[in-house]
Order: sequence, then C-alpha cells, then structure tokens
Amino acid sequence: MSRIINLNADLGESFGAWTMGSDREILQSVGSANVACGFHAGDPLVMRNTLRLARAAGVSVGAHPSYPDLQGFGRRRMQIEPAELEALLIYQIAALDGMARTEGMRVGHVKAHGALSNMACADLALARTVAGSVKAYDPALILLAPALSCLCTAGREAGLAVVEEIFADRAYLDDGQLVPRSRADAMIHGAAHSLAHVEAMLDAQALISVSGKRLPTAIGSICVHGDGPEAVATAAHLRAELARKGYQLRPLSAPAV
Amino acid sequence: MSRIINLNADLGESFGAWTMGSDREILQSVGSANVACGFHAGDPLVMRNTLRLARAAGVSVGAHPSYPDLQGFGRRRMQIEPAELEALLIYQIAALDGMARTEGMRVGHVKAHGALSNMACADLALARTVAGSVKAYDPALILLAPALSCLCTAGREAGLAVVEEIFADRAYLDDGQLVPRSRADAMIHGAAHSLAHVEAMLDAQALISVSGKRLPTAIGSICVHGDGPEAVATAAHLRAELARKGYQLRPLSAPAV
Amino acid sequence: MSRIINLNADLGESFGAWTMGSDREILQSVGSANVACGFHAGDPLVMRNTLRLARAAGVSVGAHPSYPDLQGFGRRRMQIEPAELEALLIYQIAALDGMARTEGMRVGHVKAHGALSNMACADLALARTVAGSVKAYDPALILLAPALSCLCTAGREAGLAVVEEIFADRAYLDDGQLVPRSRADAMIHGAAHSLAHVEAMLDAQALISVSGKRLPTAIGSICVHGDGPEAVATAAHLRAELARKGYQLRPLSAPAV
Amino acid sequence: MSRIINLNADLGESFGAWTMGSDREILQSVGSANVACGFHAGDPLVMRNTLRLARAAGVSVGAHPSYPDLQGFGRRRMQIEPAELEALLIYQIAALDGMARTEGMRVGHVKAHGALSNMACADLALARTVAGSVKAYDPALILLAPALSCLCTAGREAGLAVVEEIFADRAYLDDGQLVPRSRADAMIHGAAHSLAHVEAMLDAQALISVSGKRLPTAIGSICVHGDGPEAVATAAHLRAELARKGYQLRPLSAPAV
Repeated sequence: MSRIINLNADLGESFGAWTMGSDREILQSVGSANVACGFHAGDPLVMRNTLRLARAAGVSVGAHPSYPDLQGFGRRRMQIEPAELEALLIYQIAALDGMARTEGMRVGHVKAHGALSNMACADLALARTVAGSVKAYDPALILLAPALSCLCTAGREAGLAVVEEIFADRAYLDDGQLVPRSRADAMIHGAAHSLAHVEAMLDAQALISVSGKRLPTAIGSICVHGDGPEAVATAAHLRAELARKGYQLRPLSAPAV
Repeated sequence: MSRIINLNADLGESFGAWTMGSDREILQSVGSANVACGFHAGDPLVMRNTLRLARAAGVSVGAHPSYPDLQGFGRRRMQIEPAELEALLIYQIAALDGMARTEGMRVGHVKAHGALSNMACADLALARTVAGSVKAYDPALILLAPALSCLCTAGREAGLAVVEEIFADRAYLDDGQLVPRSRADAMIHGAAHSLAHVEAMLDAQALISVSGKRLPTAIGSICVHGDGPEAVATAAHLRAELARKGYQLRPLSAPAV
Repeated sequence: MSRIINLNADLGESFGAWTMGSDREILQSVGSANVACGFHAGDPLVMRNTLRLARAAGVSVGAHPSYPDLQGFGRRRMQIEPAELEALLIYQIAALDGMARTEGMRVGHVKAHGALSNMACADLALARTVAGSVKAYDPALILLAPALSCLCTAGREAGLAVVEEIFADRAYLDDGQLVPRSRADAMIHGAAHSLAHVEAMLDAQALISVSGKRLPTAIGSICVHGDGPEAVATAAHLRAELARKGYQLRPLSAPAV
Repeated sequence: MSRIINLNADLGESFGAWTMGSDREILQSVGSANVACGFHAGDPLVMRNTLRLARAAGVSVGAHPSYPDLQGFGRRRMQIEPAELEALLIYQIAALDGMARTEGMRVGHVKAHGALSNMACADLALARTVAGSVKAYDPALILLAPALSCLCTAGREAGLAVVEEIFADRAYLDDGQLVPRSRADAMIHGAAHSLAHVEAMLDAQALISVSGKRLPTAIGSICVHGDGPEAVATAAHLRAELARKGYQLRPLSAPAV
C-alpha cells in the first residue's frame, strides 16, 4: 500500500543584506516551500530568487503571508480589522503569485505565518478572514494549516482544499496546541527523534501529545524548519526514511499556469 | 471624423490614516486610473477601495509602481540595480493585478511614478528595465508613458503597446522635457488654459513648447492631476469640452479577466 | 483664587507628502504639544518643523511615542515584549528630544499614543514598562496620562511627575474609561458642549460619566483634538472661556535646555 | 616615541530576527564602534544591546547614520533635499545619543554610512550638509571620515574635530578614492596583508595607491570590517601587532555624560 505525504518548509525569509535559512539545501528535501511575501521577510528580489530555486528543485510554492511587521518578523500579535487584513493578505498572495507566473509557476497553497497563524489557529473569526481572503484570491488554492486548528475548520467551511500539517520538531499539548516554547519539552531535538515523532503520528493518523493522548486527524503534510543547525539534516533524514518506508513524497498540487 | 483620446490620473495615493486627492470626483472625468501599489502610497486597503471605485465608475486601471520610498512619495531619485528594480516592479504590478482580479477586473496598463518615471524618461537603459519588467509580467499590458520619452522608445522596442501621454497642466521645453517646477512658467493654470494647451497639441499632433516649437508625436492620453484645488474642475472641463468637440473619450483597453 | 490648567493637543502627525491637522492654528490655543516621533506619524522633517512652530508659539513640547505602525497610525493593538518596547520608546523620546535641543528646546513630557496608550491605561504591567522607559530616559520628564488610568498609577510608582488629563470631546463610562467610539454618545460635539463638559469636571475635580457618576481625580490638563473641522474652534473657545473664568493656562514645565 | 591610533568598526547592523556581524568578538579589538541607528540596520533593541556590549568592552560609540533604506542596507544612492537630510541625520544621531545616555554613555563621533558616505566623500555640498547636521546636534562631536575626502574638508570648515580614517582591507586609486569593488584588486585579503597595507600608510602618513603613489594625510583611525570570515582575525591581528610596534590604541574621545 502506498501512502502519500508532503514535506513543507518556510523559505525565502532573507531580507535585503540579511540572509536567513539554508534554502538551497532544504529545497533538496521538501516538496513544498512556503515563501515569505515581503511583510515579515522576503523582499521582492529574495522572493524572485526563491521562486527560481524552488522551480529548479521541482518544489511547489505557496504564499506565506504575515502581519506587516518586518522588525518583529511577523511574530508579534496585532489586531487588524477584517477588511484591512483581507486586503493585506490578498496583496501578499497576489504579489507572490504574479511573480511566480513570470517564472512559469503558480502559487498553489497559502500558509499563514507567525502570529497571524497562531492567532487564527485559536480564533475562528480570524481564521474565517484568512480563509475568505484565500478564497477571494483563488478558490482553487490549497490552505495549508496546522491539524485540528480553527484554520482547518474555516478553510473547509469556505470550500477550500485543506491540507493538515504536523510539526516535525514540536511537541503537542493534550488539546492539540503546540507546547509553548517557554517549556523545556517544547522542541523535539535531533533527526532521529523527529522521525520517530512524525512516524508515530502518521501511523496513528493523530496528533500525539506529550502525555500520550491521541487526537485523530488526517495528516497531509509535515512542516520542517528551514533554518537552524539541525534543519537540513532533519529534513533530509525525514525524507529518506519516509521514502524508505514506502511513503510517496509529493509537492502540493498547484493550479495550471 | 471621430478621434479617440484617453484621460488618465494618478489615484489611490492615500495611505493609512492620511488621505490625498479627490478620487471619487476625478473618477467621474477620467477614463483610466493609475493606481499606487504601496511603495510610494496606497496601502492594500486603499488599493482595494480604489479598484472598487474605478470599477463602479467604468474606469480602467493601471499599475503606478514606484521606487520604495513612502516618506519621499517616490519623488526622490534612487539608484537601484536592474535585477532588483525588475523584482520591485513585478511585485507591485502583480499585487495590484491580483487584487484587481478579485474585483473582476484586470490591470490594463502600467505607468511609472515620480522619480522612477522622470529618470527613465531620460535614461534608455533604465527605461528598458521598466519596459522589460512590464513585459515579463504580461506582454499584453499597455505602457503609458510621456510622449517622446525613452520610456516610449523602450516600450516599443520591447514590443509593448505604448500609449503616449501629454500633461494638461505642464509646459514643455524645446527638447520635449517638462519645464522644471522651479520655473515660473512650469504650470498651466486654470481649466481654460489647460484645455487650450491640450487642444493645440492634439490638433498639431505634437508637443508644443513654451517657445512655440512643435515636436511631432502621437498622443493617446492626457494626464490630469488627481489632487489640488483645480484638479476636479480641470478634469471635468477637459472631458466635457473634448467630448463637445467630437473626441471619443475611452478607457485604455485591458486584457480579459 | 487662581487655578492653573494646561491644554494639550497631538500635533506633528503629517508624514512625507501627507498632511494632517491644523497645527499652526491649534498652536495658538494650546499650551503643550504632543509631537509624533516617526513611528505612527511625523517624519524627521515634520518633527523639526513642528518643534519650530511650537517654539514660535511659546508652546511646550512632549514626545508622543507609538507602536511601530505607520500604516495603522499606531491605532492597532500590538503585543511587544517589555525589553523591546522600552527600547522603542526610549528611541522615540530620544530622537525628538535631541531634535528639540538643536532648536533650543527640551522635551518636557511624554504622552503615549493610540493603541499603546489605550492598552497601557488598562494594563498595569504595560503601564509600568511605559513609565519605566520615560524614567530611564529622564526622570525629570512629566508623564501626561488619562486621569484614573493605570498609566497614572505606574507613573507615580516610578516617581515621575504625573499630569492627569481629561478629554474635551469624549464622554466617560462609569468606570472612567472612554465611551467606545462605536457608541452614538461617544463624542461631545461643538465648542459649547465641550466647554460645559470640561468645566463641570474641573469644578467637580472628577470625571463625570454619561450617567452622571463622579470619579474624583486631580485634573492638570485638557486634551483637545488637533484635526477635524471643529478642532480649531473648540480649542480657541476653551482657551478663551477658561481664561475669562479665571484659569491660568500654562505650558507643562520642561527641564532646562 | 609613542604614536596614537584608533581602530573602528561598523557594528549593531542586525535587525529584528536577522543577525549580522560578530559584534562581541570585534569589540575585543576595536577602540570605537560606529553604531547603526535604525535607517539601514539596527532596530532600537539592537541599538541598545550594542551600546551595552560596547560599554562592557570599554569601546567608544559613534552614530552611523544612513539614508532611509532598510531593504538596500543604505547602499543605494538617493537624492534627498538638504533640509530633509539634515532632519534625518539629527534624528538618527539624537536617537542613538539619547539611548546612550540611558546607559551612562555618550555618542562621541559620527560616521556616515554606505551610499551617503560615498556620495558625500565626493560632493562637497552634500558633505557640508552632513557636517552641518553633526554640528547642529553637538559641535563637540568628532566627525570620523575617509582621509582626503570632502567630508574631512567640510568637517574642518564647520569647526568640527575631524578624525581621518583609512581602510585596512581596501586598496586606493591614485586620486585617493577606493578601488571599486568591481575590480579584482579592490580588496586586501588576509590579516598579514592588511597589516602591511596599514603599516605602510601609517609610516608614510599618506594613502598609498595600488600604483604606489603617496597622498599625504593625517591618519587617526583604521576601519576594520565587522563581518565576514576574516574580520575577527584581521581586527585582532591589527590590534596586537600595532600594539607590539608601539602604537597606543585608543577610543575616540566622547563628550562627558
């Protein structure tokens, strides 16, 4: 029996003279790249270069829109009115998708970044604004979102294709939320532990919390980190081992150019 | 015999809490709006609202991209490498065009803003970067550019449809450049003088300088100002009088949605 | 018996090509100006020109720091870590104060802007970060803050001189908070009503809510608006009538240059 | 006989989530740090942390103001009116100096960054605006500027203390300008070559061009790079060898707190 899974990573998070991440290396392992759109990272030239690298690697691209917060890397919570947020999101998705078209590609999915994602995962009204913005831009886009989050709910409500993701290096609470980074057990360290963590959840088709609780969910994608010393090795290890165990690793499908 | 002409204005130049221009009123007179894309003015919500106003008024929209210079309103000369400038321009055009699609519209033309336009009018290499960026995004886009400028040359070289514009309220030098604003005779004041200035050039199919010199050129569009106390009255007067004299006032044509 | 009162207004809120407010006119009526520091409004040239106007009018100046949010005019709630917020606030106060020194002035007070003020009025921990930042920059600075707010509490705790302000055109709830702008009775309209509202509170030395409840407080300053059609007239009326009734209208005192 | 020399480096050029340079290590070797002020790099928290690191290392701090160009790292040429540029420069110097005061330090010098420096080195009018801005903020500040540049001329004209700097890793043309980075011989590679390059110029009290031409100048400081693989080693080598050869390595003097 063949099982299909996707690996995704946040890429294109350099800005101007500042570089971040190991995009070239990570692109050898993942099937899909979430590309920053200029609001938390990723100036237009970085975006274009990231699109070209992704195309060369055969990796599908998605928009990774954020609150407008370069200094805070999109990690600071903000309160933005729905109409304005919708405009901000469509602007970012459109900018990346239009650039992608000039490279013979299309944006195939959207994944919210940072504080926007964290807030929308737990706030259905906000999640609906995100999903509505994606749908307004193109109802054929996939919404890539943390499994069991309000974003998944809102995406399905909106009629979008939703792909649930799990995190290779983050532990879960009993309610399906991520263990806060302030706790010592927030992170799964090392490629071997990440693989075990991921495999257990794939086998169970459930999130598995630190206490062992299982929260059933479909799992369509695994998020790996794009930076940090372990990122490249972990991504490569996950890819190789999942392939060895019979998984077919696939990009997220994109609309036709 | 029926003659066709377009009126255009720079619109959507508010930003956040700051408003600029009389967009609603000007949209009653022009056929085409050059919409700011967020780099010198026009945040995403302003852009979206401007697109909706234009659609309601039956006015075609174009992208009005700029150097990244909010504080200087895009009027400060900058030196940007061609590869980076191309990415900046495509980003802006794409963002507006993608937003336009969500409103059932398309961006039909591109007109460079401020210092970028001024520099590219006199610098063929820079003009080629601008024209190449437009073409890279969509070769069906119209390049709207000052008559007899390097931008017209570069646009035609690139195979773009070029529409030459004249300015209703600016006087010309013998070489076809605008009289610098520092000179007392830079501006044409009042609706009546603007109309006479425009009609003379349309009749001659030439720029007419302050000294009376004629520089033959096709003229496809007339640029009117979007702000200032005289703007609304001048635009309305031009529209009414040109119509009365048999001109057909038309939007610039846009690609199909 | 002579009573002392201060009138203050938020000024210098233009940015680049965009103008806001009637600074020149308002400066004829107020004793103190809260000057934007570049994060929600007020680029450096606007700041410098505002300082010069204030000096010419004999008006004391204070810093009006904000969350970093030009697009949202500092009105969008943000969550910023205390260490970072302290740096942001000191940066803004320092920038304005250093500019003021070049004009032979000093910043004499600090008043938080927009969402930062609203949040700090109701959140003592945040208010302590604001007050601590002011004190870190210069413990001789006055903290100008809404009467009965956490900002007043935190300012006094920090040993700062606190001046409590009331709003000339805003109604109060029974708990001393402002009536939300979404309610029909949020605003006090017209110069006469504003004056009556202010005089009643000055006479009572208390906030007076829409239901008539009195919340005793010292009142050292009255905030008038710097923009809007009624602003100039209301400020002038308040100044004239308060003077006629025996109030001495004073700037907030500033440290020596 | 004892000779006095200063080593300086550009530091504090991280921004938000992006790090740049090896500030902690470089601070062990230099006497003075040119600290970014938020316009090309260095958000307020980075600025504050850099000031603290410098204080702990006994290193004097200067302001390193730039054109407003975060995306271009201040390396893109811009054309800004003198009155506006002066405001931008005073704002940046003031912000850093005010932050420094909260750390018990003072800004002691100013060194222009990137394109602003490059342009002002060759344009006396622009150099006068820079020097005038420094003087307007505090005439006791030192202007640190490339030897034999217009900035030195303008600084002396303004009555500022000027410290001439040479670059440890850049070759010179016969006219005293730096060899453009596009040429293969632009850079001096390796700690040993840099030391030899520096020593020859110190001994000659002259710039020495690639063709061997000597351009006499006082030399008060040597600029070393703050990032790149060789930077830390080169700075340490220069410091150690110059000390061994009898140079006294000193911070630039700062005004009293």
